[in-house]
Amino acid sequence: MTQNFDQKFIAYALKLAKQNLGITSPNPVVACVIVKDSEIIATGVTARNGRPHAEKIAIEKVADKKILQGAELYVTLEPCSHFGQTSPCADEIIKFGFKKVVIATSDIDERVNGRGIQKLRDAGIDVTCGILEKEAREINRGFFKARQSGLPFITLKLATSLDGKIATKTFDSKWITCEKSRLFSHHLRSINDAILVGANTIKKDDPSLDCRIAGLEDFSPKRAIISGSLDLDLRSKIFQNCDKNPTVILSNKTCDKFKNLILCAEKNGKVDLLDAMKKLCQSGVNSVLIEGGQNIATQFLRENLVDELVWIRSSKIIGNDGIAGIEELGFMRISEILDGFVRVEVRDSDSDLIEIFSRK
Amino acid sequence: MTQNFDQKFIAYALKLAKQNLGITSPNPVVACVIVKDSEIIATGVTARNGRPHAEKIAIEKVADKKILQGAELYVTLEPCSHFGQTSPCADEIIKFGFKKVVIATSDIDERVNGRGIQKLRDAGIDVTCGILEKEAREINRGFFKARQSGLPFITLKLATSLDGKIATKTFDSKWITCEKSRLFSHHLRSINDAILVGANTIKKDDPSLDCRIAGLEDFSPKRAIISGSLDLDLRSKIFQNCDKNPTVILSNKTCDKFKNLILCAEKNGKVDLLDAMKKLCQSGVNSVLIEGGQNIATQFLRENLVDELVWIRSSKIIGNDGIAGIEELGFMRISEILDGFVRVEVRDSDSDLIEIFSRK
Repeated sequence: MTQNFDQKFIAYALKLAKQNLGITSPNPVVACVIVKDSEIIATGVTARNGRPHAEKIAIEKVADKKILQGAELYVTLEPCSHFGQTSPCADEIIKFGFKKVVIATSDIDERVNGRGIQKLRDAGIDVTCGILEKEAREINRGFFKARQSGLPFITLKLATSLDGKIATKTFDSKWITCEKSRLFSHHLRSINDAILVGANTIKKDDPSLDCRIAGLEDFSPKRAIISGSLDLDLRSKIFQNCDKNPTVILSNKTCDKFKNLILCAEKNGKVDLLDAMKKLCQSGVNSVLIEGGQNIATQFLRENLVDELVWIRSSKIIGNDGIAGIEELGFMRISEILDGFVRVEVRDSDSDLIEIFSRK
Repeated sequence: MTQNFDQKFIAYALKLAKQNLGITSPNPVVACVIVKDSEIIATGVTARNGRPHAEKIAIEKVADKKILQGAELYVTLEPCSHFGQTSPCADEIIKFGFKKVVIATSDIDERVNGRGIQKLRDAGIDVTCGILEKEAREINRGFFKARQSGLPFITLKLATSLDGKIATKTFDSKWITCEKSRLFSHHLRSINDAILVGANTIKKDDPSLDCRIAGLEDFSPKRAIISGSLDLDLRSKIFQNCDKNPTVILSNKTCDKFKNLILCAEKNGKVDLLDAMKKLCQSGVNSVLIEGGQNIATQFLRENLVDELVWIRSSKIIGNDGIAGIEELGFMRISEILDGFVRVEVRDSDSDLIEIFSRK
């Protein structure tokens, strides 16, 4: 029974955590459920930019703190044990007399990494860790990858015709995919920390690259442009509203015009994608959504930087004079071609089909 | 209850009919179930090349014909009423004293077309028609289309990389798709009357184009080549075993070398695909599977001749220097592109995905 209760409340907490996915970076998104006598009495989800933590928000909601004496706390990530901008959550849990803490997954942040659990146990609290661990790691895959490798979790999204084209030869692309699929694209924007495009996409389409699902405008990601030439127009939409959705330029050089916007990453006179991703990660971005164009998509695939591939495919056919979603890769033999992805999900999207692939 | 029994036995008969799909043309594939006192006492499926008919095979299996007195007969297509190579099935049913006949769908062959049903009713037999009619029409979609339009039912199969390529730029293609998908391709061959390829495919790959599923070799389709130049080598595999799997050449001209093999269909100095399909249909082919190459696939799509599109897609990526499954179509605007298909089925095939589209 305990095991079932643990799963039940952790599953609920994981669902809550998704509410703020995409807006807590560089912190992970965490949710917490406080239970007394088998009833939920408070919940909390990490707030925008990562503060306050989920545990503190939930505890704050309980007006009469005496009720917390002997209560249980279910949380999707190990409570912090170090003094940062605020006092550690583990200390709060101990202070209010919780008797049991159930944790989905330990934190790999070097300042926590088991110390939170140890602190709670030392205080005599019954601690269980590892309930729905895989699911908890998946939600914070950006956070975990960033902490482990110094790189963001990278999703490449392609929206193509049945034959893999992103536009006709005249670059007409509105619309290849259906309305439901385009809504899904905006959902992807909302859950990622940053969206990345090439300079050509800015020049051709002048996109605003925000999340336009009604009510989710505040979940719009940071915006990143890859530009070697820095031949960009400050009047482009991507340079508007930067106080709300900051824009950065990843380039191999710098110039006065865009000085404060540039993250410089250079190798052999070109933009060094790996280094650019590292620098983007250091700036607080744990997850990146690549939306185009074909040149950027191809470079990220070629350099094996893509963790997840989302392919939205229409039922319409453009023909081989259309613009391909992926450019030339130079392979001679089938034994050489890219074989790094495994299809993990297929979903209907009205007249389109969405396939999701993970790195093998 | 009667309705349920009708559905049950017709559903079983439809399943039986699939056994001989692809080998009864130009006749439809039909199955028949004889029931006495709610028990199945005999079944029959149309034999190779369409004779004997299912009803006669089932009746023949009942040694003591007196048992047929008062029995019920369930059949997937209206029994024939005309004298052809043999006596009409309707006459046989009347002769042996069946009391009830349940039919999935009426026949549209002008020699039958309701006359079989009328004949049975005139003899005092209780006749029900229209049970699982849609499914029955689907199994014989080749037969029905051929009778209605004079054209075979045309399936285009493409096996591509994730980005829609059928080979690398050096024409290496073994193997883009997985073993399970290749087995499915052979299954498609087994249920179609004919397989069609372009002359280039013969020159490049020298395929035998037979069904190589163990045990189903006898279900290999007729073979058809489209060749304008007639620049073909009689030593190619496609010209072997023609006594078992006949080969025809669809061309805009004729020559002594291939004289007996040619079906000539010409328009503006080129092969007239529509006329070629009509002539193939007249030769007894109700269903055609187009397997390649890209030029043939593109022409059939462009001329809106494809009834069903089967797209087998691997998870591997070749890149845009590979050979596209579909060639240039010349569209400038999204409003012009091919939008004639609706996705009707999606199925997993190990590491591949199979999408099946129907003409809208």
